[in-house]
Amino acid sequence: MSKSDWPDSRILDLLGIELPIVQAPMAGPAGSALAAAVTGAGGLGSLPCAMLSPEQIRAETEAIRKAASGPLNLNFFCHAATPEDPVREAGWRDRLAGYYAELALEPPDTGAAATSRTPFDDAACRLVEALRPEVVSFHFGLPEPRLLERVKSTGAKVLSSATTVAEARWLESRGCDAIIAQGAEAGGHRGMFLDDEPATQVGTFALVPQVADAVRVPVIAAGGIADARGIVAALALGASAVQIGTAYLFCPEARVSELHRKALADARDDGTALTNVFTGRPARSIVNRAVRELGPISAQAPAFPQAGTALAPLRAKAEAAGSADFTPLWSGQAAALCRVRGAAELTRELAADALRRLRISA
Amino acid sequence: MSKSDWPDSRILDLLGIELPIVQAPMAGPAGSALAAAVTGAGGLGSLPCAMLSPEQIRAETEAIRKAASGPLNLNFFCHAATPEDPVREAGWRDRLAGYYAELALEPPDTGAAATSRTPFDDAACRLVEALRPEVVSFHFGLPEPRLLERVKSTGAKVLSSATTVAEARWLESRGCDAIIAQGAEAGGHRGMFLDDEPATQVGTFALVPQVADAVRVPVIAAGGIADARGIVAALALGASAVQIGTAYLFCPEARVSELHRKALADARDDGTALTNVFTGRPARSIVNRAVRELGPISAQAPAFPQAGTALAPLRAKAEAAGSADFTPLWSGQAAALCRVRGAAELTRELAADALRRLRISA
Repeated sequence: MSKSDWPDSRILDLLGIELPIVQAPMAGPAGSALAAAVTGAGGLGSLPCAMLSPEQIRAETEAIRKAASGPLNLNFFCHAATPEDPVREAGWRDRLAGYYAELALEPPDTGAAATSRTPFDDAACRLVEALRPEVVSFHFGLPEPRLLERVKSTGAKVLSSATTVAEARWLESRGCDAIIAQGAEAGGHRGMFLDDEPATQVGTFALVPQVADAVRVPVIAAGGIADARGIVAALALGASAVQIGTAYLFCPEARVSELHRKALADARDDGTALTNVFTGRPARSIVNRAVRELGPISAQAPAFPQAGTALAPLRAKAEAAGSADFTPLWSGQAAALCRVRGAAELTRELAADALRRLRISA
Repeated sequence: MSKSDWPDSRILDLLGIELPIVQAPMAGPAGSALAAAVTGAGGLGSLPCAMLSPEQIRAETEAIRKAASGPLNLNFFCHAATPEDPVREAGWRDRLAGYYAELALEPPDTGAAATSRTPFDDAACRLVEALRPEVVSFHFGLPEPRLLERVKSTGAKVLSSATTVAEARWLESRGCDAIIAQGAEAGGHRGMFLDDEPATQVGTFALVPQVADAVRVPVIAAGGIADARGIVAALALGASAVQIGTAYLFCPEARVSELHRKALADARDDGTALTNVFTGRPARSIVNRAVRELGPISAQAPAFPQAGTALAPLRAKAEAAGSADFTPLWSGQAAALCRVRGAAELTRELAADALRRLRISA
């Protein structure tokens, strides 16, 4: 395989990769082993940093650099931190009271620490300046201009996710080098930042060509892409590359609990929903008891990431008893297309199969 | 163009068409002029019969036969007729009371006639036996086996829509000759019949390959397909053909009100939602006042098609004043890709452009 085999080499040239495949940064499951395998295979490995300490980010980056020589993407959240809202949080704990009673747990204190998801800040920016990743991607918009300028000054290419044409235009106008068009099929958190309405989210099939028409920078398609058919289709719709998440959750390199692995293995096309009950932001999860009974969208859920705080003890106790009733089971809508393989093998096979299909359709 | 130009000729052979393009049957806007233009251009023209009388179906079919010689699809609804529910309907009228007051209308009587949408029955079956369409397609499942058997005995090929893999398997096992995989991007009514949960509906990108893997009969992709890029992508995902709706609403042959045409012309990617407020069943419409204030999904809406009965006077009065506040503005998520063209020209251009793209990707 060489760059010239692909119909569109814009992303390959921009990011310095051989294959038009970006491993989705999935905070939690994705660490250095996964990123190194994908980068080593010629794709773009991504390290999600939102739930890591600066020390962990350094250590993980060093591990990736040691294991693979290609480009690396460091991914950060850049949500606006919302002030605490004790009334809303108390209402949410009330909503969960029955579950606490059922699991024989004491409701957590009002002051319980939120699940740690730090927005990109000065400390993170200093890390980027020190670690010099070739690519920095953001979720939930972009950081403030002063920080973004510093990131770009390092020479890093900047990516962010758009869930609508308006978000894609916003990102391009602020200097994004490529846009990830995140269709509604995608697992995990919607990158939405200009809007918070799950009901109008756009499917990959409709979103990708409209974003490709709206911006001049290259487009990376995401959402529902789990095999080579999806790669060929995404390129046909106007994307220059794809971002793949759920398929990488099946790899041994992903840190996925046994409960989550089992749910993914049993996943059906219609077994997921966009839900805000786990974190306060819409995210696609396999439907379990929490999604079914509390959501999928709850007007009572506190703002991101507070909704997860009061669920954490329920999740921990249920998981200890072998139940995923309160566990976020992030998954896109195409998990049933996936199978277990090493991440390097998956990356190479996806690319080779896509190229074969591109040639056959000749 | 010849059949051998296409990578997969299964649908072409099955339905006797030259181009792998099915015009979506859209009850209301689609009549004989649209179907004749599409069939005449080499695609499959479809006549939606759910809102037509037997006399109208005969007359429209004759008009199509006179104008075009290719195959014709007669489309029918086959929802289970739900018994009237006076309590629920009274609750819905109460919910709308403020709008009646605002528009200076008297609330309609309890016994107001429902919007006519007749499920496929013995009379419709006799029409099929007399009119001998080459194709009969159903929405909301299939009619009872006795009626389906009579349809198949005429030699008509039978299609129906699946919104999930489970529905696709159900349809295949009952004798469907091809499955329309209707992704969540599609405009108008979801064909869902085993489930009524809008939150777990599957996007076209994820649905098509999973349905193609699950059934042996050919798959027709629908939802978000509005240009040649979408046709090429649908074929890459495993479809043998596409069904296109919204793009045909832009044609002069479609009977679309000026208000609806204007809303379509101004449509944005994120301007639609699945809503049940217009008919009682989830259907994709451009978001207007009714969708925003009553839904998009309302637990109070009476069962299909009763929800529309109490809205009808509001719609009529608002439309007379130039407002689409209460008008169902059916649209898929890719209306922004469409432009005004004759239906024959659109059909031929889509096919020619798709073939050109298939060759270039060689």
